[in-house]
Amino acid sequence: MYQLNSILENKAINKLIESFERSPMQLNKPHESDAEIIRLNDNTKLAITTDSISEEISTGLYDDPYLIGWMIVTVNMSDLAAVGASPIGILISEIIPKNFGDEKVKELQRGISDACRAYNTFVLGGDTNEGEKLVLTGTAIGIINKENPLTRIGCKTDDILFSSGKLGGGNAYAISKLISQTNSFSNYQPLARTNYNNGINKYASCCMDTSDGFISTVDQLMRLNNVGFEICSDWLNVIDDTAVKYVKNLSIPAWLLLAGQHGEFELIFTVPQDLKDSFLKESLQSGFEPVELGKVIPEKELKINIYGEMIPINTTLIRNLPTEAKGDIKHYLKVLLEYDFQLKNEPCLNFTSH
Amino acid sequence: MYQLNSILENKAINKLIESFERSPMQLNKPHESDAEIIRLNDNTKLAITTDSISEEISTGLYDDPYLIGWMIVTVNMSDLAAVGASPIGILISEIIPKNFGDEKVKELQRGISDACRAYNTFVLGGDTNEGEKLVLTGTAIGIINKENPLTRIGCKTDDILFSSGKLGGGNAYAISKLISQTNSFSNYQPLARTNYNNGINKYASCCMDTSDGFISTVDQLMRLNNVGFEICSDWLNVIDDTAVKYVKNLSIPAWLLLAGQHGEFELIFTVPQDLKDSFLKESLQSGFEPVELGKVIPEKELKINIYGEMIPINTTLIRNLPTEAKGDIKHYLKVLLEYDFQLKNEPCLNFTSH
Repeated sequence: MYQLNSILENKAINKLIESFERSPMQLNKPHESDAEIIRLNDNTKLAITTDSISEEISTGLYDDPYLIGWMIVTVNMSDLAAVGASPIGILISEIIPKNFGDEKVKELQRGISDACRAYNTFVLGGDTNEGEKLVLTGTAIGIINKENPLTRIGCKTDDILFSSGKLGGGNAYAISKLISQTNSFSNYQPLARTNYNNGINKYASCCMDTSDGFISTVDQLMRLNNVGFEICSDWLNVIDDTAVKYVKNLSIPAWLLLAGQHGEFELIFTVPQDLKDSFLKESLQSGFEPVELGKVIPEKELKINIYGEMIPINTTLIRNLPTEAKGDIKHYLKVLLEYDFQLKNEPCLNFTSH
Repeated sequence: MYQLNSILENKAINKLIESFERSPMQLNKPHESDAEIIRLNDNTKLAITTDSISEEISTGLYDDPYLIGWMIVTVNMSDLAAVGASPIGILISEIIPKNFGDEKVKELQRGISDACRAYNTFVLGGDTNEGEKLVLTGTAIGIINKENPLTRIGCKTDDILFSSGKLGGGNAYAISKLISQTNSFSNYQPLARTNYNNGINKYASCCMDTSDGFISTVDQLMRLNNVGFEICSDWLNVIDDTAVKYVKNLSIPAWLLLAGQHGEFELIFTVPQDLKDSFLKESLQSGFEPVELGKVIPEKELKINIYGEMIPINTTLIRNLPTEAKGDIKHYLKVLLEYDFQLKNEPCLNFTSH
């Protein structure tokens, strides 16, 4: 079944919210947008989103307090960017361990403060608690000035698929922290695309950020829009150069940088073909260089040109793997490598994504 | 020094936010209101607040999933009520332990859902993570329709001090969960005063909720407004009957129900003397019976009529005690009982609150 519910994460969310009523002021349905869109009155639409950083800390993915501070702002700003909202600010709840130490707290706050400056936004308020483990929860608000806000819904066959930047940095970083502790990939400090979302907001037919990695993002867009995607570009041009070099040294196939679920906080979006030239012209004028990835196709699958062929990717397998691996990162990588082996040797036998 | 910074919690917050810039859209300064007040445009003022429930769970204060769900909505709605905001909705981030179990998750969500219905509000969105300990973070938004929003600032000498309801239930519940495990006080399910805040919003000169208990609340109001309070009423009339009975059985002096830091989520507010009659008339017409507590005085202290005399209470001692006791609840109670003994026997030697 080609459904949202085939993805364990979607299913879990739907179960959690099944008893909740929806607000008549809310313009989006569940899963339909990166941030919630609330119509306050005739003139004002608010975007609001909440994200915690907890698993990333307990697994050791994030261990630098400055980066944690930077990320709690970035992950939330990225959700605002994906609905074309201008940030107003963020509230941050911090659960800080008793023995965390003043120096680390200072670094955490410096990361938050630097990130706010980068996004021209502000900490509006917060809450602090003492706890065993460090947990940060941010809630960001922004204003949407467009009559029909940008959401994950709206792309049509033949629309052009873009990314706001090169991909794979988030997963190279995750590999360096969780798998190859000896070989570091240190330049991970993503910048959410709040400054580049004007052209996207104006021209895009749908948009979603890559907070869970590229393949999860396009899989969700496929399910929501009842379409598929074909990555026509040489996919190596789409991936960050330093990330490609990094995984080459570890003998991990570079395309798996698109499959892992730690993102680079780029925006994935579609632009109708007849608007492509205007969009690109306007983007380049503002110093923004979007990366063309491919196009929307009617078949409900993701096809990528790897190993010399257009191969349909089992995105369901890839998206559900983190849940099924239950935190066993070695098992997770093993299954991905086996899947890659299968694609390389028997691409025609590959079962497609449902 | 009679300052905000004499309170360890205020000092800790000020240190956390010292590197943060303030938004030009934000109308309140730090500490000045229960929710952050943001001026979106000429016609729209937004209230936003975030609160986590974490320590209450790890200490065993909250162990019923339904109550935890109810409380994450209530604590945030109470902050909106204290600034006179009409709720729009809430976002909830949930960190759920791996082995929490489906039944408990269902109860948690039922508590959230029932509370939203009680406040005529909605879950707008959220986030879920897996973690070792259950942690819930809510962020509520509301709309303020008043030109000069209600905050913690604005009371003057001779204003009348009110509570939206009887006090002490929160601390009786805390005693039953943390001290006397055998003797239960089970009727704790507070209702934030979102439905009764119309008259308060119209007439009050300042307002704050009792989320940290009555004495902490008036201490903060004293410091922010540079005034004091005199509780002229027979304070026993101010305390919830079942709570008084409950502590009598445990030989704990009833006035300590005002000192503990687990609140009942009532609103403490002041009304100028010349508006008192209009306020009370309007309140009674709408079925709301505020409890008159006393009045604002120029001396910067809290005086309560206990043990036959108007006694100044050392609110600094009481507020800083949870931080200083470092989670040792027996030590916490011991210091409070010693302080009560001192008041009873040598009220004139009592050092006042600075």
